[in-house]
Amino acid sequence: MTKLLLKGGEVLCADGQIRTVDVAIADSVVAQVGNVDSTWMAEQIIDCKDKLILPGFVNTHTHAAMTLLRSYADDMKLMDWLENRIWPAEDNLTGEDVYWGTMLAIAEMIKTGTTTFADMYFFMPEVAKAVSESGIRAVLARGMVGVAPTADKSLTESEEFYNEWNNACDGRITVMLGPHAPYTCPPEYLKKVISLAERLGAEIHIHLAETAGEVAECIKQYGMSPIALMKKVGLFDFGTLAAHCVHISPEDISILREKGVRVAHNPGSNMKLASGVAPVPDMLEAKICVGLGTDGAASNNNLDMLEEIRLAAMLHKVHRLDPLAVPAATAIDMATVQGIQALNLDKLGKIEVGYKADITVFDMQNPHWYPRHDRLSLLVYAAQGNDVHTVIVNGKILLNNRQLTMIDEERLFRELQIRGMKLVSNINK
Amino acid sequence: MTKLLLKGGEVLCADGQIRTVDVAIADSVVAQVGNVDSTWMAEQIIDCKDKLILPGFVNTHTHAAMTLLRSYADDMKLMDWLENRIWPAEDNLTGEDVYWGTMLAIAEMIKTGTTTFADMYFFMPEVAKAVSESGIRAVLARGMVGVAPTADKSLTESEEFYNEWNNACDGRITVMLGPHAPYTCPPEYLKKVISLAERLGAEIHIHLAETAGEVAECIKQYGMSPIALMKKVGLFDFGTLAAHCVHISPEDISILREKGVRVAHNPGSNMKLASGVAPVPDMLEAKICVGLGTDGAASNNNLDMLEEIRLAAMLHKVHRLDPLAVPAATAIDMATVQGIQALNLDKLGKIEVGYKADITVFDMQNPHWYPRHDRLSLLVYAAQGNDVHTVIVNGKILLNNRQLTMIDEERLFRELQIRGMKLVSNINK
Repeated sequence: MTKLLLKGGEVLCADGQIRTVDVAIADSVVAQVGNVDSTWMAEQIIDCKDKLILPGFVNTHTHAAMTLLRSYADDMKLMDWLENRIWPAEDNLTGEDVYWGTMLAIAEMIKTGTTTFADMYFFMPEVAKAVSESGIRAVLARGMVGVAPTADKSLTESEEFYNEWNNACDGRITVMLGPHAPYTCPPEYLKKVISLAERLGAEIHIHLAETAGEVAECIKQYGMSPIALMKKVGLFDFGTLAAHCVHISPEDISILREKGVRVAHNPGSNMKLASGVAPVPDMLEAKICVGLGTDGAASNNNLDMLEEIRLAAMLHKVHRLDPLAVPAATAIDMATVQGIQALNLDKLGKIEVGYKADITVFDMQNPHWYPRHDRLSLLVYAAQGNDVHTVIVNGKILLNNRQLTMIDEERLFRELQIRGMKLVSNINK
Repeated sequence: MTKLLLKGGEVLCADGQIRTVDVAIADSVVAQVGNVDSTWMAEQIIDCKDKLILPGFVNTHTHAAMTLLRSYADDMKLMDWLENRIWPAEDNLTGEDVYWGTMLAIAEMIKTGTTTFADMYFFMPEVAKAVSESGIRAVLARGMVGVAPTADKSLTESEEFYNEWNNACDGRITVMLGPHAPYTCPPEYLKKVISLAERLGAEIHIHLAETAGEVAECIKQYGMSPIALMKKVGLFDFGTLAAHCVHISPEDISILREKGVRVAHNPGSNMKLASGVAPVPDMLEAKICVGLGTDGAASNNNLDMLEEIRLAAMLHKVHRLDPLAVPAATAIDMATVQGIQALNLDKLGKIEVGYKADITVFDMQNPHWYPRHDRLSLLVYAAQGNDVHTVIVNGKILLNNRQLTMIDEERLFRELQIRGMKLVSNINK
């Protein structure tokens, strides 16, 4: 048994209170939270004085390998951005590119306190390899586009990927099915996906109602909203994670609640792409589970969950003209407890005995952490992702005093710079 | 003559282009930008490989000492927040508190790349002392409230403060007059302020049209908007910096343009307090100078200008549903060139021969800086304030490899924690 001790930190406990206590970790699990005495013979003790200890952040929606396109195309109209920049670049991607792009994403996520992410992309075995090697936790889905020539192939690949990787790496990897969106996957195709989901016992990760245009088009074509159409098709029957849900009606919210759909809210991406503001306070009031996500680094442009936490807490205040909309504690809950629920994972999202040890430690020795009237307010409204000092996933230290333990950063930076430039070198700007 | 050399960095040049060049600094001024040869005998050479060199950020509106109240009262309605938390705490403030609170603010601003800030508060000689000792540049105004018993005293104090500190510290400090706002300073009082401004040759820093409520009240009381009222009173006649300008009409924008009023836009504060969204794209289109500000740390809750740059670039996109609203380069211009114009300073805001050497150096060795398709996009949409590596003000190094050179952080943190707690210890929550 490997024993690890976080000594004397200020811990966000499962009841939402912060207490100065020790956290003892045995193998992959939290063994004690409290005053841990010297009979607990830890192999490694981390001094956590002046440190804030939280459950690791959960990024419920991203396309990790899109780090390769970070800063390649910004401040553009959506279709111009997609058709003239992103899609042509993605056409050039190789499996090796996806491996390295994902590894950079994982490095960035670990360094900013994320311990679990939900990904939808392609070349997914390469993504799984990066997850496996890096030690992070992930819920992976092969993106499927029903209108593409690869439509049927991607169903087969999804099934193979599920069989090979679901519950792999000590349970660190789980697999979902990833039909891209209603506007790229017609109902007949979705029915094949749903049938596969039922057969495998897999859940579904999909984009829903991200832009006003796609909602209007859906209503025109099918006489109902994307949410209503998905209910009719049966997409919500076996567990669904719906990314965005920006342009939704009160009726749509009722459907989401009735069907237990969990939502990935991506405030940074929605702001930068000018998609709109999701009715998050309404969804929370309806007791819908809302996690937070960064979306891909081509539309954010970072994978820093603390920024999403802050934006979730600030965007809805100004949008509703209500300074009480999405308070600090709610935003943290969305990034931890609700994030875990959104991904349908178990025994995660809290620092509690018997829970998996996925833990993020913030260093509070910086001017923006003083004075300390309220530590959660400091975290949500003042801290920086780079304040993360230590990150533990499944009981293993992945970041130690800001240094990645499993990833060679120098090599990573070199690969990314070369691959990123090569990817776009033949595309007209 | 003190000679300093920034060697081989990627410099945001005055024409908006980024080039790999050296920057030579002689005393307080930029002496060369280009390939600086070995005949330039620098006393100190900073290796700037993999670093991005920018003009220092300009924080055009803050209340620095309010760091003391950081995280003390968040997620509250504005009047509840002010009347039951902020004002009672401020009543307890001493001059020493203001000195230490300001010093913490300066430490935080330097560490996140700000080289100049505009402050409005009280105990201003203590603020000036902190500016003097720390080496930062500042434009200081004693806040004046016309409806308070201290109304006349604050006019006298403002004049004394102007005479003692304007152009002090090698020109690092300039002084403005700081009437708080139209709703706390009636026209008769403002006329005294204007008369003093004219006599001293001082400019004015004021809050204008921050909330919908104050604008409605002004229209009810005076039959016109705060902006129109200020024009009528003559407040715009001798140079004015107007903070917020959230709730303004097209007619107000015409007045601001006609009178050359410069605006301090505070997106973080406006979001967190749920004040509303200022019509920044309209003001920029009208060629009004718009700088960026953090506002005080009680309503933000940090003083990180990179966050304001990002919010300025993202908030208006989602508010206008236009992904081209406030592009990256515009947001940087607001935080540098326009910030300097807003504060009516000269030979600052650009890295150019003959300009004052106020410079911020970002370290790009972090995952979120890869790959480097576009460095300004990376800065605006992906970087963190903590990525700042070196800061130079007036030719002097204030931050060296992330370490403050003029400020004892340990002492500062201790003072702030004690003073912050004491300040609020007798206030009912």
